[in-house]
Amino acid sequence: MHAEIIAVGTEILLGQIVNTNATFVAKRLADMGIDVYFESVVGDNEGRLLGEVKRAASRSELVILIGGLGPTKDDLTKQTVAEFLGKDLVEDEAAMAKITRYYAETGKTMTENNKIQALYIQDSIALKNETGFAVGNYFKNANGTDFLLLPGPPSEMKPMFAHQAQPRLQETYFNDHRLFSRVLRFFGIGESMLVTKLADLIDGQSNPTIAPYAKTSEVTLRLTASSETEAVAKKMLDELENEINERVGEFMYGYGDDNSLVAVVVDQLKKSKLTIAAAESLTAGKFQSTLGSVPGVSTVFYGGVVTYSNQTKEHLLGVSHETLENEGAVSEQTAKEMADSVREKLGTDIGISFTGVAGPTELEGQPVGTVWIGLAMKGQKTTAKLYHFSSNRYFIRERAVLSGLDYIRRSL
Amino acid sequence: MHAEIIAVGTEILLGQIVNTNATFVAKRLADMGIDVYFESVVGDNEGRLLGEVKRAASRSELVILIGGLGPTKDDLTKQTVAEFLGKDLVEDEAAMAKITRYYAETGKTMTENNKIQALYIQDSIALKNETGFAVGNYFKNANGTDFLLLPGPPSEMKPMFAHQAQPRLQETYFNDHRLFSRVLRFFGIGESMLVTKLADLIDGQSNPTIAPYAKTSEVTLRLTASSETEAVAKKMLDELENEINERVGEFMYGYGDDNSLVAVVVDQLKKSKLTIAAAESLTAGKFQSTLGSVPGVSTVFYGGVVTYSNQTKEHLLGVSHETLENEGAVSEQTAKEMADSVREKLGTDIGISFTGVAGPTELEGQPVGTVWIGLAMKGQKTTAKLYHFSSNRYFIRERAVLSGLDYIRRSL
Repeated sequence: MHAEIIAVGTEILLGQIVNTNATFVAKRLADMGIDVYFESVVGDNEGRLLGEVKRAASRSELVILIGGLGPTKDDLTKQTVAEFLGKDLVEDEAAMAKITRYYAETGKTMTENNKIQALYIQDSIALKNETGFAVGNYFKNANGTDFLLLPGPPSEMKPMFAHQAQPRLQETYFNDHRLFSRVLRFFGIGESMLVTKLADLIDGQSNPTIAPYAKTSEVTLRLTASSETEAVAKKMLDELENEINERVGEFMYGYGDDNSLVAVVVDQLKKSKLTIAAAESLTAGKFQSTLGSVPGVSTVFYGGVVTYSNQTKEHLLGVSHETLENEGAVSEQTAKEMADSVREKLGTDIGISFTGVAGPTELEGQPVGTVWIGLAMKGQKTTAKLYHFSSNRYFIRERAVLSGLDYIRRSL
Repeated sequence: MHAEIIAVGTEILLGQIVNTNATFVAKRLADMGIDVYFESVVGDNEGRLLGEVKRAASRSELVILIGGLGPTKDDLTKQTVAEFLGKDLVEDEAAMAKITRYYAETGKTMTENNKIQALYIQDSIALKNETGFAVGNYFKNANGTDFLLLPGPPSEMKPMFAHQAQPRLQETYFNDHRLFSRVLRFFGIGESMLVTKLADLIDGQSNPTIAPYAKTSEVTLRLTASSETEAVAKKMLDELENEINERVGEFMYGYGDDNSLVAVVVDQLKKSKLTIAAAESLTAGKFQSTLGSVPGVSTVFYGGVVTYSNQTKEHLLGVSHETLENEGAVSEQTAKEMADSVREKLGTDIGISFTGVAGPTELEGQPVGTVWIGLAMKGQKTTAKLYHFSSNRYFIRERAVLSGLDYIRRSL
């Protein structure tokens, strides 16, 4: 099963937008077990688009076109594919009703070309657009290449692919079984180490499959089982997850594609009814800002301080002058005093602190990347951990924030 | 002049990485006035790659291949293009010396395939790799299509394109004149409004050209003049910039592709020898973290507080209980007291504060997106401004931070 992705849009060829749509669809297809041999981008030009469609149809079993379904004269994808297939365009009643209703409700004037968005290729399946107006198309071709047409805006394309297209591709190409996925999320272990520890499982994989992905400071594993029923797939995934857990379980912090370490930690704090405050030096508010990105965090996060200068550490936070003089700003003792002090000042259950050298130059004779994280928890002895991060200022601060979150996660 | 970009790499087809290389090169080519009609992606497969090279050569005057120049058996780009051209691969002495030196210095074992990175296509120009080992190639073809081969890692590709490739493309295709660019950066005006205000200049453009780009909350204009000498180009760009300035000058904050509002503000603070502290509620440290992203900011940025809860505003910062009770946490008076208080507590010249509703739900009866920013400056009356931002939590906080920076910029 070979698929091919064609993105349509002059703005991509001008370098004005990045073609993340192709990445999204390619990843989903890879997860389903569909091979992509080619991707291409073509501008809003009927002749060149038709040329690409012909070529793609000559070598791929499924051609996915993204973009060019909108109402402007530059939007030519449906028309061009219909021409290639020798089909007419017909109207999707539900989509037309949605468009008409929108213009009636907003009082705006509906021009003729707005109606184009409700048209789809005859004998294809019109795919509902949950977040926009332009319908998608899935054309199953008994005599040749299948076509899937998706809208260009990612906010429309992603839900349409996930809810309308993917189940139909699944049914068409894998009709005797279904795919069930589970994403495991890891922090504190690199992709190469993770893959090494699971080498035999990965080499021997067939069903379930194991697909690792590395992001900044994080790795995920997508486990995918193919089975006739969800119950059987669940059992297969559970067994594989257990095996993985035995080897690298301490680094796993959660599940899911759209999850994150901060979301897991905030959830833990809420469940444990523990409040938190932070004192930040090198991270300069990035840890607190990361907590602040989670909606509803205010029930557990009270705030904190940013002590970028030594005077601020002393005057605002009350770190002892002696400690700063004798041990230095980047030291275990300073980290502990910062964590204790911010916890006391804000009256929270947990106080966390960050002090270190973000670079570009060393500080107090300590190399760039040296970071102390302090953790004060009510009723427990305050601790601090030393980290050495490499790479640049951005990465050091990012890595410090994630390590702080992981420190809390492991302490709860 | 038509160019075509082929990215080589199976990891792109698997959706594991986004093809930002194509975006970078496409944008640079557009700035130079070179049209790109097609982009494509092909995996690490010699047969399919050769097919794409043949097709590209049949329809484009310049084919740019990115990726596949490394030392592994999957890296086949040079070999495939050499085969297509009927050329041998020859060794670049400087590149080979660099590779040999690296292995001698690190004591690692150099395998045979590492040498492949120093090979280039006979009769082409070897392009130096400043940040890696694999040389690039620029093959000027008297009888047909030209080829440019660039390495895949963006950290190698970008400097090679900018320093080695771009001047040679310039010389080859525009040898009677050179291009001189200037980027103007704007905040506080949307792209559509900017384009409307400059409509006659943009419509009538030919030399210099005007290219607008919109990023999150920012717009840039790239002015490009084509001329035989830098002096003439400078004069043309100055005149155009003056015209633009008369219309939208108040929104322009700086110059350059790699500049940012925070870098400009930190620079202003340093030049004015003014120190700053911040008190943040809805932004939860994002403003301070943004300041902290600038190396060397510690001479002007002392730190501040994050007052996420009302108690913290009162106890840590000393905002009056009365104000919070009567006016509310999201109010002009609270913003002013926060700014005053953080300035006093940290002993800085400037205090800035952020309080507002990031969402997803309203607060104290005020809608999501309501933000007050307070600004206290030594020797001046403290002020505050009300903003209404739309969209989601992420955007509201981001926009608040940038608006705070712009507030400072306009006050200095």
